[in-house]
Amino acid sequence: MTGMTDRKRVVIVGAGFGGMSAARKLAGRDDVDVILIDKRNHHLFQPLLYQVATADLSPAEIAWPIRSIFSRYPNVSVFMGEVTGLDLPGKRIIAGDRDLSYDYLVIATGAVTSYFGNDHWAMVAPGLKNITEATDIRKSLLLAFERAENSEDPEERRRLLNFVVVGGGPTGVEMAGAIAELAKQALSHDFRRIDPRDARIILAEGGPRLLGAFPEDLSDYTRKSLEKIGVEVRVNQQVSDITAMGAQIGDEFIPSANVIWGAGVRVDHLADWTGRECDRGGRVMVNADLSVPGYEDVFVIGDAAHVPWRDGMTVPGIAPAAKQQGKYVGGRIIDHMRSRETPPFAYRHAGNLATIGRHRAVIDLNGFKLRGWLAWWFWGLAHIYFLIGLRAPALVMVQWVWSYLFRKKGARLITGLMAGEVSEQINPAQKPAKTPPGE
Amino acid sequence: MTGMTDRKRVVIVGAGFGGMSAARKLAGRDDVDVILIDKRNHHLFQPLLYQVATADLSPAEIAWPIRSIFSRYPNVSVFMGEVTGLDLPGKRIIAGDRDLSYDYLVIATGAVTSYFGNDHWAMVAPGLKNITEATDIRKSLLLAFERAENSEDPEERRRLLNFVVVGGGPTGVEMAGAIAELAKQALSHDFRRIDPRDARIILAEGGPRLLGAFPEDLSDYTRKSLEKIGVEVRVNQQVSDITAMGAQIGDEFIPSANVIWGAGVRVDHLADWTGRECDRGGRVMVNADLSVPGYEDVFVIGDAAHVPWRDGMTVPGIAPAAKQQGKYVGGRIIDHMRSRETPPFAYRHAGNLATIGRHRAVIDLNGFKLRGWLAWWFWGLAHIYFLIGLRAPALVMVQWVWSYLFRKKGARLITGLMAGEVSEQINPAQKPAKTPPGE
Repeated sequence: MTGMTDRKRVVIVGAGFGGMSAARKLAGRDDVDVILIDKRNHHLFQPLLYQVATADLSPAEIAWPIRSIFSRYPNVSVFMGEVTGLDLPGKRIIAGDRDLSYDYLVIATGAVTSYFGNDHWAMVAPGLKNITEATDIRKSLLLAFERAENSEDPEERRRLLNFVVVGGGPTGVEMAGAIAELAKQALSHDFRRIDPRDARIILAEGGPRLLGAFPEDLSDYTRKSLEKIGVEVRVNQQVSDITAMGAQIGDEFIPSANVIWGAGVRVDHLADWTGRECDRGGRVMVNADLSVPGYEDVFVIGDAAHVPWRDGMTVPGIAPAAKQQGKYVGGRIIDHMRSRETPPFAYRHAGNLATIGRHRAVIDLNGFKLRGWLAWWFWGLAHIYFLIGLRAPALVMVQWVWSYLFRKKGARLITGLMAGEVSEQINPAQKPAKTPPGE
Repeated sequence: MTGMTDRKRVVIVGAGFGGMSAARKLAGRDDVDVILIDKRNHHLFQPLLYQVATADLSPAEIAWPIRSIFSRYPNVSVFMGEVTGLDLPGKRIIAGDRDLSYDYLVIATGAVTSYFGNDHWAMVAPGLKNITEATDIRKSLLLAFERAENSEDPEERRRLLNFVVVGGGPTGVEMAGAIAELAKQALSHDFRRIDPRDARIILAEGGPRLLGAFPEDLSDYTRKSLEKIGVEVRVNQQVSDITAMGAQIGDEFIPSANVIWGAGVRVDHLADWTGRECDRGGRVMVNADLSVPGYEDVFVIGDAAHVPWRDGMTVPGIAPAAKQQGKYVGGRIIDHMRSRETPPFAYRHAGNLATIGRHRAVIDLNGFKLRGWLAWWFWGLAHIYFLIGLRAPALVMVQWVWSYLFRKKGARLITGLMAGEVSEQINPAQKPAKTPPGE
């Protein structure tokens, strides 16, 4: 059942960067009704998820309720629900036993973690794609130190203090650096029977260097900087097996209670749901205007879309790309309603950036490179700029900078313990008190 | 195995207000080693838990890792673990299959939710004693509105928008007021098919008035203020049954998907573990110096202790009382080590306070009464004072005030969804767009 009036109904599935940008482009208009659907109630700033996983940020600092962002736009309705199928010929989305018809459809459902076919690794090596995964990792990291403090068994202690991160892209680099700083800085004086600085953080990358999409000199700088803060970097090393006891990296089995997967993503479902051609990662191969071949009123954007770019590459699965595509598609829909032509989508790549610990970063702005402390401040400002895209007042920006600088260590919470999850081992003999730490 | 040197070992079980105060009194000394044990890794500011439950604060804003508070005191060791028994004659605590000996023992394990014997209500009417319960309630409250938005069934919608709070003490008053403001203020413009202001918030108290420990005029003021912000107050009404479908309050069954229990607490285990006399709530009946009868080196403090006060009353189970007792017991242990006498514990009651929504409070300072907006600011300052007891720099205090005033709405997160928990009902027919809300 389509709109009863001249108003067109645009259904947007997914409230990540792509879906939100499309919705914002169409918000406030009197010729469209937007229905924005997500299986969660919040928009998530994924680039900073690793900081939730390493207890540096709280979830609420990087996530916002979708409804409150659009509450002042009566033409935008938000629903919390999960799409289970599409009927493109019938112009309907399907959610369980219900369906919803559309005049235009924007699919912005993003990507999920890929284990390259080894899906059973998901049980023992979580990815980092949503808040629940981030807080689960946080709990596991912090519990490892707590259990090591309680443990009497040197082998168990070694296993608990080994941390493995798989994947040398920005996600893996950022996680490994953050875990290193957690162990070697933030927690360093907080334990009495273990020294958290004994933790080993191993970053395993199958290719020849970290940050393969960056220039080689920035890869080298990244490797050296990570090693300086205590990360062991292994390149040209495939991970061939992961169990609850650890990971097989090349020839070596590393016993570990915390293997974190940052090595790949894929797109689920869309090949089946659209019946259209998808690439090996499951991304839909879209037209020049991001529409699905054969359906000029259906669009796929963001990580879910295969969009040719340059030099044989596709548009990368990063936030700025999804935002540009969302905005473009919103404009395309407006043009289509007026039977106007639209130029093809043209991706403008600002650059790549990745942080290394809490004080350094590498930035490649299409050839103009920054590294180190200056790059980190640039990264910080860029993120604030992105974040305040969602919040109007400058006052809020000041508050964010303030709290970021003077942040509490209070994000180091272990919550959601299941019964019996706490180690019941209290150590009967206490190590003699250490010399007072300098402070 | 006691301390090998002249240093005495003080074991403190529980890192709430009582245990923390005792540990702080003994921290930094060279004649005691303190072992502080808690089953969680963080100290929780319980009085503000209700604001986590109503999505006004994030957990990390009211919880701090115990270790980092004591990291600069080498004589304080922190362990995460759960005590499962005591051997007072043998001077040991028991945790699973391990034990730990002590020279002095401080039991500060607090209280748990009491359902007055109807323990099966715990499954359907959560209490509010820790972060996990608070975030579970938060998720349930927010999901209720989401499901109501998706629902086609007016009966289901009514049930989802009915909220019942049981217990008219400060906890119940604060929860009811906060839920009312969530529904009637924060969420009021965020939905399109439901009007969150249609929510009913019912506060049920078995006694003749709310806030029974407060003067009668403040009780009246509280009732009127709650009614003004949309709470239905029922006094002299017992809750006789609670199921997944709702609650039986007096003669009426209220269908509800959210019944929250704030009506009682009790103390678990200690009667068995100590073998000493306890009151009906399970609190240990301690001596004038808070020691356990027959054991001058074992103390019980805080909510777990039955301490006579005045007018036939016992010291109330509130944070200031626990703090005073913790500090007293630390001092008592120091005196005992030097074979000195200590005057009996004397509780200094500063007063009672409770908030009503986000802008009003009632305060009774031993007869000097405040109400309304002024009381709320006073309450705010008192809480900041309490909070900064844990953090030294004034800078941090400024940051807390700043973030409290300009706080994000971002605490409205639904996290930790289980598979299938999201309603798959998308509504096929959208209500015509409302007139733009004034903003």
